[in-house]
Amino acid sequence: MARILTGIQSSGIPHLGNALGAIEPGIELSQKAGNESFFFIADLHSLTSVKDADKRKESVYAVAAAWLALGFDVENNYFYRQSDIPEVTELTWYLSCFTPYPMLANAHSFKDKSDRLSDVNAGLFTYPVLMASDILLYDADEVPVGKDQKQHLEMTRDMASALNHRVGEEVLKLPEAVIRESVKTVPGTDGQKMSKSYGNTIDIFASAKALKKQVMGIVTDSTPLEEPKNPDTCNVFALYQLLANESQIEEMRANYLGGNYGYGHAKKALLELIMERYGDAREKYQMLIENPQQIEDYLLAGAEKVRPIAREVLNRVRGSLGF
Amino acid sequence: MARILTGIQSSGIPHLGNALGAIEPGIELSQKAGNESFFFIADLHSLTSVKDADKRKESVYAVAAAWLALGFDVENNYFYRQSDIPEVTELTWYLSCFTPYPMLANAHSFKDKSDRLSDVNAGLFTYPVLMASDILLYDADEVPVGKDQKQHLEMTRDMASALNHRVGEEVLKLPEAVIRESVKTVPGTDGQKMSKSYGNTIDIFASAKALKKQVMGIVTDSTPLEEPKNPDTCNVFALYQLLANESQIEEMRANYLGGNYGYGHAKKALLELIMERYGDAREKYQMLIENPQQIEDYLLAGAEKVRPIAREVLNRVRGSLGF
Repeated sequence: MARILTGIQSSGIPHLGNALGAIEPGIELSQKAGNESFFFIADLHSLTSVKDADKRKESVYAVAAAWLALGFDVENNYFYRQSDIPEVTELTWYLSCFTPYPMLANAHSFKDKSDRLSDVNAGLFTYPVLMASDILLYDADEVPVGKDQKQHLEMTRDMASALNHRVGEEVLKLPEAVIRESVKTVPGTDGQKMSKSYGNTIDIFASAKALKKQVMGIVTDSTPLEEPKNPDTCNVFALYQLLANESQIEEMRANYLGGNYGYGHAKKALLELIMERYGDAREKYQMLIENPQQIEDYLLAGAEKVRPIAREVLNRVRGSLGF
Repeated sequence: MARILTGIQSSGIPHLGNALGAIEPGIELSQKAGNESFFFIADLHSLTSVKDADKRKESVYAVAAAWLALGFDVENNYFYRQSDIPEVTELTWYLSCFTPYPMLANAHSFKDKSDRLSDVNAGLFTYPVLMASDILLYDADEVPVGKDQKQHLEMTRDMASALNHRVGEEVLKLPEAVIRESVKTVPGTDGQKMSKSYGNTIDIFASAKALKKQVMGIVTDSTPLEEPKNPDTCNVFALYQLLANESQIEEMRANYLGGNYGYGHAKKALLELIMERYGDAREKYQMLIENPQQIEDYLLAGAEKVRPIAREVLNRVRGSLGF
């Protein structure tokens, strides 16, 4: 049984890019036999940049509702909110005393962020220690990460090794990074990578009207209706491809190449596909968002389930250090 | 009612210098009417330098036993071990997101320690945030500090102000530093300031034999027995002065100036005075050290008493930040 751990950023209502790029692959991974998945909403991390209380709460609920609506099985996995497990900040302190200062000062992500952001706070600096604590607190075996996160995993291993070495026993389990070579890139309505910061998202959990407006607003070229069109340079087709099955894709391709098929037709077909694929999820999402207490109940049940694991690991660490 | 908070370093068995310079003044302060004293053993802080588990445990027990033996009234005050209050590490994370990175990088104590120590870890860097958390977690009104700690109090106020300002209400109470202008300097057996690191301590809780050896080993000059001696340049007299009453001091001074009074006589008088003053405390200390469970019980009772205060403040902070 391998323990797979993944932190989920709580950055607003998930869009199509999040669903296809992170949530659905995450759910798929959690269904693999022999895996035990730990997914948590990293709301403590969010405080390094988001200071607004209402925004954070809304984000957490939106992210949780999206995962639940898209079918994540919380019964057979661990799904919790980082800030419900105070043990993680306690372990952070212990680890920080085994983290060389220069290791943090030289971390890529800190250098990058401190160049870019105006609010360079100490939390941003110690971020990798909290991240290590997130992982080590549950004896995680594997952490799926993008290439940009590889250094954080190495730091996590270094901290655990330093502590283990000092106390002379394997108190902390060294996790393995599983590098995701090809993360699905989902284009936004303007053809760039779909991202909230570019304002080019397709919000699968928005109202039908707003969603329709976004799909109809996908940028296309001005080839006239009657002329054949190139599917391989079209944003609508690119998105359609990510959602449709083989025969639907072939049919759409033929329509593009045949002429007398307008972008408006293609957009309508895409919208139908989205509605078909995410209809149930949209309904469930709406129901949850209107009943935040229900989301709370899921999260608190998740915390209750995961906390004994955290406590056990923390007690091991405390014991080894004489606390 | 003013809440006075003081952290106690857990650095080994307290000696005469600790007793006269810190413990007895602390106990006196706690007896002042209108004060409510919070004293805690800063064992989390100690992890930045002390990695040895047994050494830390022994230190904590020794420090606790010394305070108890010297008469600290735990019933009418708060006496606890930092690591028994995990809320302090959680608040540390919240505060660190309101602490500008350069504030920590430019802190005197970090610059000084990173020049001096070989193990420059991240805990050493974030030390002032944990210290701020220690203070703010209990709505402390006043923190008695030496001049060298003044900057830490200013940082604490800055962090609290930044958070209060951001959330738009006074969630955290701004503490006042009470600068101790004149801390009693106790000379060691060689005339330098008494300090474990100089190896010149008088260990009031050591065995009678060891204590006698230390007192008899106090460095003096070689003025012959029969000649008059200068009390004002003598280490023995300096220590005697700190413990004796007016008439005892006058008598000893006359003995020095009169001649035919050797340093051996003076040392014997000093030892007697120490035994008289600390006899009961030595007995109580020994009893406690042989019954560590009793010390544990005191500390756990202290934690139980103080934790509701910590929880209330932490909940205020969590609420204001949307956790």
